[in-house]
Amino acid sequence: MKRVMCIPNYSEGRDAEKIDKIVECFRAKEGMKLVDYQPDKDHNRTVVEVIGDPEKVMAAVIESVKVAQEVIDMREHEGAHPRMGAVDVVPFVPITEVTTEDCVEYAKQVGKAIGDLGIPVYLYEDAATKPERQNLAKVRKGQYEGFFEKIKEDGWEPDFGPREMNAKSGATAVGARFHLVAFNVNLNTDKVEIADAIAKKVRFIGGGLRFVKAIGLPLEERHQVQVSMNLVNFEKTRIYQALEFIKAEARRYGVSVYGTEIIGMVPLAALVESAAYYMQIENFSADQIIETLLIEE
Amino acid sequence: MKRVMCIPNYSEGRDAEKIDKIVECFRAKEGMKLVDYQPDKDHNRTVVEVIGDPEKVMAAVIESVKVAQEVIDMREHEGAHPRMGAVDVVPFVPITEVTTEDCVEYAKQVGKAIGDLGIPVYLYEDAATKPERQNLAKVRKGQYEGFFEKIKEDGWEPDFGPREMNAKSGATAVGARFHLVAFNVNLNTDKVEIADAIAKKVRFIGGGLRFVKAIGLPLEERHQVQVSMNLVNFEKTRIYQALEFIKAEARRYGVSVYGTEIIGMVPLAALVESAAYYMQIENFSADQIIETLLIEE
Repeated sequence: MKRVMCIPNYSEGRDAEKIDKIVECFRAKEGMKLVDYQPDKDHNRTVVEVIGDPEKVMAAVIESVKVAQEVIDMREHEGAHPRMGAVDVVPFVPITEVTTEDCVEYAKQVGKAIGDLGIPVYLYEDAATKPERQNLAKVRKGQYEGFFEKIKEDGWEPDFGPREMNAKSGATAVGARFHLVAFNVNLNTDKVEIADAIAKKVRFIGGGLRFVKAIGLPLEERHQVQVSMNLVNFEKTRIYQALEFIKAEARRYGVSVYGTEIIGMVPLAALVESAAYYMQIENFSADQIIETLLIEE
Repeated sequence: MKRVMCIPNYSEGRDAEKIDKIVECFRAKEGMKLVDYQPDKDHNRTVVEVIGDPEKVMAAVIESVKVAQEVIDMREHEGAHPRMGAVDVVPFVPITEVTTEDCVEYAKQVGKAIGDLGIPVYLYEDAATKPERQNLAKVRKGQYEGFFEKIKEDGWEPDFGPREMNAKSGATAVGARFHLVAFNVNLNTDKVEIADAIAKKVRFIGGGLRFVKAIGLPLEERHQVQVSMNLVNFEKTRIYQALEFIKAEARRYGVSVYGTEIIGMVPLAALVESAAYYMQIENFSADQIIETLLIEE
């Protein structure tokens, strides 16, 4: 069964009634599961996480944009988090039987529908139509207040919707990206320069692995150091590849791996692939895991 | 959420209408999922697999025993598989938030209920009340036909129900056991005596790992050999322990592991524990796997 994750961000984190109207678009709906929603008062922003059938998720997102258009007025919005619109960002992430390319298509469909509601839409990350739009921070630069001018600048015409800022609803970024795996490797040394040096080797910009971002950090209480990584495409650069790369580099300093951490959620496939590598399992399929029988069809 | 697996075996594998009446007890029921059912004409037997809330699964099993009591007459039963009753065996296996000890309790509750229906019941495996009843083959020895005498023998009084064979429904074995992981290790050699020697070392009876059963086998087409194992308690003897034990023994012969196989279904926890070992993940929880969010509550 096809399944996509969508994590729309709404610029309302204080008014429970308004938040509820938005979240209602995803609650107890057939073919999707509202995983979580987190209103943040300081950011004045609510992050919704939903997983489900792509068509149904897309329809619910578009419905929620209409609700947000009603209940949120960006002219009155203030909050600590950068934002450019009432529905600020809408990323699609593949879960099962769905590729990043499919998610790019979903982003375009939803982007078009939001544009048709009179809201300027920018496609970002893997859905970006220009390299400078891949990075969300660059797209959102100037924020809501700055977009009244930015939208008229060369190269900043929206991908969908009018080339005129929507005063009430702002602009929306719609994107597609792979699930990010936050993977940290803790080293048996307190010398942060070693973590730094290894981080610079393992990451893409240093000539390392294609889909790894990394920095070195001290873990002061533990008297250890950490190579803290984001694996931005775990299907192409696997967890075990990052781990083995770091082990090999650490040997240069006579340093070993004390332990590792996976922060937050991880797709089953990311774990299964690395388990299969270390356990040398031939032809293992995630369908062999009993718990997958319990997933709603 | 508590979840148990139950795999009741019914002595009817030919009459689709009767099978359907039995399976109906588990189909589309709230709080449980009918995973599979396999009628076998030669064995004249149907194996049902159901996972769900323990209370609801127990109730459905008892309901199915009443149906089997109606529709199956052991006086007319013939089939290739050993059997002692219309409902032949009822094993409970822990899945989530349930221990083997809990499953022993479920076996006793269901056993008592079946006994109250006038059917002699024997508890087996982890639910056994005597060592000689742990092994199902020993309990079932003599089969339906022999039980009219066996039930009167010293030491073979039923755990529940009358000490008199039920001519129509026979006797039933109810048990609790851990999920078995079928794990094979393929070695880079065609000498079956090496697989044999390693199998004898790794298994419990040879002084090896507590919860491992193992034999050596030739894989003729592959020109390799296999240590074929059943891990009967993957929580206490983990997959990686069996693998590392075999790697260490194989080194004695200058032989390496070509690959491994996990046959059939495996609980997520079995895989996660071994993945965490090899990847040295600190404090990893299966709840961090996205797909667990999709499991019906």
